[in-house]
Amino acid sequence: MISDKMKPLLNNNSTIRAMFEEGMRLRSLVGEENVFDFSLGNPNVPAPKAVGEAIKKLVDTVDPVTLHGYMPNAGFPDVREKLADHLNRLHGTSFTGRNLIMTVGAASGLNILLRTLLNEGDEVIVFTPYFMEYGAYARNYGGTVREVPTDQKTFLPDMEAFRAALNARTKVVIINTPNNPTGVIYGEEVLKALAAALKETEEKYGTDIVLLSDEPYRELAYDGTPVPYVTKFYHNTIVCYSYSKSLSLAGERIGYLLIPDEVTDAQTVIDATIIANRTSGMVNAPALMQKTVAEVADTDISGTVSYYDRNRTYLYDHLTRLGFDCVYPAGAFYLWMKAPIEEKAFVELCKKHYVLVVPGSSFSGPGCVRIAYCVSYERLCGSIRAWEEIASEVFAK
Amino acid sequence: MISDKMKPLLNNNSTIRAMFEEGMRLRSLVGEENVFDFSLGNPNVPAPKAVGEAIKKLVDTVDPVTLHGYMPNAGFPDVREKLADHLNRLHGTSFTGRNLIMTVGAASGLNILLRTLLNEGDEVIVFTPYFMEYGAYARNYGGTVREVPTDQKTFLPDMEAFRAALNARTKVVIINTPNNPTGVIYGEEVLKALAAALKETEEKYGTDIVLLSDEPYRELAYDGTPVPYVTKFYHNTIVCYSYSKSLSLAGERIGYLLIPDEVTDAQTVIDATIIANRTSGMVNAPALMQKTVAEVADTDISGTVSYYDRNRTYLYDHLTRLGFDCVYPAGAFYLWMKAPIEEKAFVELCKKHYVLVVPGSSFSGPGCVRIAYCVSYERLCGSIRAWEEIASEVFAK
Repeated sequence: MISDKMKPLLNNNSTIRAMFEEGMRLRSLVGEENVFDFSLGNPNVPAPKAVGEAIKKLVDTVDPVTLHGYMPNAGFPDVREKLADHLNRLHGTSFTGRNLIMTVGAASGLNILLRTLLNEGDEVIVFTPYFMEYGAYARNYGGTVREVPTDQKTFLPDMEAFRAALNARTKVVIINTPNNPTGVIYGEEVLKALAAALKETEEKYGTDIVLLSDEPYRELAYDGTPVPYVTKFYHNTIVCYSYSKSLSLAGERIGYLLIPDEVTDAQTVIDATIIANRTSGMVNAPALMQKTVAEVADTDISGTVSYYDRNRTYLYDHLTRLGFDCVYPAGAFYLWMKAPIEEKAFVELCKKHYVLVVPGSSFSGPGCVRIAYCVSYERLCGSIRAWEEIASEVFAK
Repeated sequence: MISDKMKPLLNNNSTIRAMFEEGMRLRSLVGEENVFDFSLGNPNVPAPKAVGEAIKKLVDTVDPVTLHGYMPNAGFPDVREKLADHLNRLHGTSFTGRNLIMTVGAASGLNILLRTLLNEGDEVIVFTPYFMEYGAYARNYGGTVREVPTDQKTFLPDMEAFRAALNARTKVVIINTPNNPTGVIYGEEVLKALAAALKETEEKYGTDIVLLSDEPYRELAYDGTPVPYVTKFYHNTIVCYSYSKSLSLAGERIGYLLIPDEVTDAQTVIDATIIANRTSGMVNAPALMQKTVAEVADTDISGTVSYYDRNRTYLYDHLTRLGFDCVYPAGAFYLWMKAPIEEKAFVELCKKHYVLVVPGSSFSGPGCVRIAYCVSYERLCGSIRAWEEIASEVFAK
């Protein structure tokens, strides 16, 4: 009954489903409170109070015909202007509402942009380990993914490998900083090096290459680590943003694409992306949520950041004390850890102790696991005994 | 910069944009109150009060981590159960939550289902005139649209032409009842005839053909006209629903797909559609809106229906009195009218009188225009003078 193209996706999906069902099984077996589920990037910190207040205020004060009705497919003009101003205040940029397209979360933003840009056989570069749905998105539109390794200590792009991977078919390079799954942040030097290689390649082949910056974790940066605004480094930069993590609105599907005027044929790219948004079926980003994020754009989320920061240092300190080899994360809410034994066996061992983590192979980073620490601090503290038992089993060997 | 596939879409889009911009120009020229815009299917009746109350109650009583967070990609299990129960009470069916996939509006539902079903070159049958975005959706996944005419008096499917169009490559037949743009409702006899032809074709070729019932206007039926539930007539029926029109939530992008157990390989189709929902970038339907529609599923919307009904008879009576040839709509909120002169010239003439209507060619129904009467009654009354002037110009000729 289903199409041939869906069949491999259905087969791949069984891994994710198996993990999910295993979690359900364990919970029903030993109780919710005894399962330490670090598998999902679903924020545990509630949305700021300002979000709920904004929603109620909007319901009370805005005409429902406007609040819940169709608006231009790119989003409410006032929302786009407000968010452009917000970005300009933060980054000293000079965007207008015209540069923003409100999207059904970042995943939709990435899809409609890749649809807009990719011809059959065009290449999309990603840096391993990475969020592998990028691959599914690129393949939706005939794109081919080319994986480029990162340095295995810093997890920053291997520039030599990057330069070697660039060619006449390169159309998009996706970066994700702060990074899922490593927590690494790309500093100015890295962005400058990427930009230089891209410009050189564009000139060499007479092509345009888009640097697509996927930034749902932008605000989740610790120790004051700066997260430079990528549009300042390279003309063909397009930013994909989501409020899923910063405002804990992952289920609401609200974000935007930012397409600066410096992008080649900017207005055409903007127009085509809006059409892709409509004809791919999203039509527009959810109306009430557009208005909501515009209302709370300036809300202080330092409490959210501190919460994850405490989790981060607590977990990192304990795991390294126990002998595990982890990347100290500068941002996001993931810990990337070397599997001390064979990856799949390690994931199984963790499960035996009711600890759920994602195998690194799911991020094209074999030999590692990802630990999502967007869980309650109490649950995190409660997991340490399990980690101690896991450590004693693997390091005794 | 943009892909070859997007270029024709960009060119087509200029018609819609031109119409939109013309509306803006006219409004700024003669004032909002003097432009009679019948071009958009954006409900003018506000969402029922229960919607705003449900939203506020949910914000006040549900943990924001649940209310705004990720849920299974198919939607909140409790929401799906509640809506299945609702359908069962209304239609005497026996669906469970497992049969429902919450979607980012009907447009997303149609897209992810077509993606799930279509192989390159598969045919999708539509009945003219029709909502032409169906064509864009089908082509997104390699499908080919085959247009089948309707009877030019009743606008019900021409069964002879339908039977002639069915073949071994037919994969999906889309029906839309109550219909956009004609307002026609398919009764039991029509559905039985469609089902018989489909079953015969399935048996002849050993194939499966999905009858995709796109039903955003289900509740907008007048004079007590029944809108039979399509799953009762044909085993491979899949329903695509949206709350855009019934609850005036067009901007919120909330609806569902219903895939009954009677569908061939039902569980596989359900699983694959959920994956298509995720990998196409929607991920899940907006969380708060899922909970909201479940809360208000039983809300009485007879006030909304009466409002459109009054508009319907008022406009129909006046336009036929003036000599125009219109289909008396049984449902939805559109009037399908024969253009008394050449279609494009007529649209231009209307515009001269500050009346905006959509040319029938935009629905593959040339020689007609669509008048969306989801506007305020006062505005509708105000438009009659303009219609009189238009009538005197065309019928004097």
